[in-house]
Amino acid sequence: MTKVHAYAATEVNGTLEPFEYELGPIGPYEVDIAVEHCGICHSDLSMLENAWGMTEFPFVPGHEVAGTIKAVGAQVTHLAVGDHVGLGWHAGYCMTCRQCLSGDHNMCASAAGTIVGRHGGFADVVRAQAPSVVKLPAGVASRTAGPLFCGGITVFNPLVQFGLSPTGSVGVIGIGGLGHMALSFARAWGCHVTAFTSSESKKKEALAMGAHDTINSRDLAALESAAGRFDLLLSTVNVKLDWNTYVNTLAPRGRLHILGATLEPLDLAAFPLIFAQRSVSGSPVGSPATIGRMLDFCARHQIAPTTEHYPMSKVNEALDHLRAGRARYRIVLDCD
Amino acid sequence: MTKVHAYAATEVNGTLEPFEYELGPIGPYEVDIAVEHCGICHSDLSMLENAWGMTEFPFVPGHEVAGTIKAVGAQVTHLAVGDHVGLGWHAGYCMTCRQCLSGDHNMCASAAGTIVGRHGGFADVVRAQAPSVVKLPAGVASRTAGPLFCGGITVFNPLVQFGLSPTGSVGVIGIGGLGHMALSFARAWGCHVTAFTSSESKKKEALAMGAHDTINSRDLAALESAAGRFDLLLSTVNVKLDWNTYVNTLAPRGRLHILGATLEPLDLAAFPLIFAQRSVSGSPVGSPATIGRMLDFCARHQIAPTTEHYPMSKVNEALDHLRAGRARYRIVLDCD
Repeated sequence: MTKVHAYAATEVNGTLEPFEYELGPIGPYEVDIAVEHCGICHSDLSMLENAWGMTEFPFVPGHEVAGTIKAVGAQVTHLAVGDHVGLGWHAGYCMTCRQCLSGDHNMCASAAGTIVGRHGGFADVVRAQAPSVVKLPAGVASRTAGPLFCGGITVFNPLVQFGLSPTGSVGVIGIGGLGHMALSFARAWGCHVTAFTSSESKKKEALAMGAHDTINSRDLAALESAAGRFDLLLSTVNVKLDWNTYVNTLAPRGRLHILGATLEPLDLAAFPLIFAQRSVSGSPVGSPATIGRMLDFCARHQIAPTTEHYPMSKVNEALDHLRAGRARYRIVLDCD
Repeated sequence: MTKVHAYAATEVNGTLEPFEYELGPIGPYEVDIAVEHCGICHSDLSMLENAWGMTEFPFVPGHEVAGTIKAVGAQVTHLAVGDHVGLGWHAGYCMTCRQCLSGDHNMCASAAGTIVGRHGGFADVVRAQAPSVVKLPAGVASRTAGPLFCGGITVFNPLVQFGLSPTGSVGVIGIGGLGHMALSFARAWGCHVTAFTSSESKKKEALAMGAHDTINSRDLAALESAAGRFDLLLSTVNVKLDWNTYVNTLAPRGRLHILGATLEPLDLAAFPLIFAQRSVSGSPVGSPATIGRMLDFCARHQIAPTTEHYPMSKVNEALDHLRAGRARYRIVLDCD
């Protein structure tokens, strides 16, 4: 039996407090990860708020885990004790549905969420089904790897899914935890990269992180003058935008891809879609295979998220920093 | 000089009356088509109503032309006098923009509309730029070929554009001029085909035209029980539907593709797109190359639209029949 030292909230929006629990015997296909670092994602906050009505308390957040394999089940062959690994939104898949068998584990309807009915990575140990745990290749540092496993794969996945050509032009809407990684990925992918931001300081940082240029998202004339320009727009914001103006910035065959779970409906005019064969779409995180491809890509191109670090014992300060919208650009908790 | 005997309206929603005009000398890349048959499309009515604010009067409708080449310009090499051909929504392309050079002539921003600032095919002769005119292969009858050139290619094109797999499941929303051809195309494509209709008589006809099954589009419980089922939904209606219910009938990676120019915005919830990597999109008619592929496919699979015929001299009766929503399924005018 392994005793886990975690941080948990006991009620909606509660402060996180030290919380201990016992892990039962490890299953044949499970692994235990000794957590070294864990990123904080907006969906940790949403779960803490029970915004999606599926949070169980005591609630241990944390699904951007980087660490070392501490134990493996009897049937686990692709991971071994001591391996440097990461774990993201999903901690297991059914492995036999049409999606899993097609390599689309991230769309498995029975996938287990790392923090949904389970205790997550704000802890010294976290358990997961082995297929959801991906090895870090040489060149990907554990200290900044965590955010790749949720925020990173969310923005990397569409580049793979839609076979984005390096000759294309990519726009990133919202330069935050997800968006800042999207800039680096799209730049290394070979594309022309544009950051949409209304912040003067983020504008400079966006250019440093990979954008070739920026458009002030509050300047309607600037948005309108970008008509017909983008092959792929990645929206990482969770607020309602003037979607039709963004659709009009798409080239023929262009795609507006929604990654931020905005709650208000997208009020899309049909004609601009029809006229130029445009698409509007969305996607969740990525499959383990795509996570692996992303990590190799990060190693080859020396891509890492820009992180701010807090000791895990200061998790409540870190959450306040995120709530205040001040994170530049992803907060990582270091186990202490 | 060629004198053309056409039918034109001189004002918005006016009755079509005999109208003669002279064609000037034929240009080097132009052809004249002796019209034998011309389908009637809803967009002929929309143009007659000046619904899109771009109609010039006197207005000669008609952009689903089947006929015979009567004259060719000096530089035309791929067509000769006597060839059986068709002409659709577009009567010319710039040939040098990015879209034209990529084979996406149908998205050329400078494409000439057959009935936009030009006189169309409700006439004994119509002129067009040669690249927009496509030969009918053996096995495609002139009498029913016209509707393929606008309504037909509109529903065939997405099957090509999105590389639909014959293992897929296709739903067709709206069984009318476009939808009835979509059923035949998707069936011959090898897919499972479902027709959405609320009409009992259309239900039987849809099954005869290629649908494997039907869903009553007014039966919410039936729509809800089809959740997660379709890889491609083709919507040919121009009214607002409960789009989110249709999105939920899409499988992971599924696409709701809009072909009917509904004016009310699509009020799409973001989460069902994100959760299962779904897309919503649209497209206009097709390029000449895709029209050619469609015609070959029609010949191989003996696909033709289901048509009702009127002599061209009874064009106003034919238009009234269309306005009344009684066409089953496409009206064709025969030159008399």
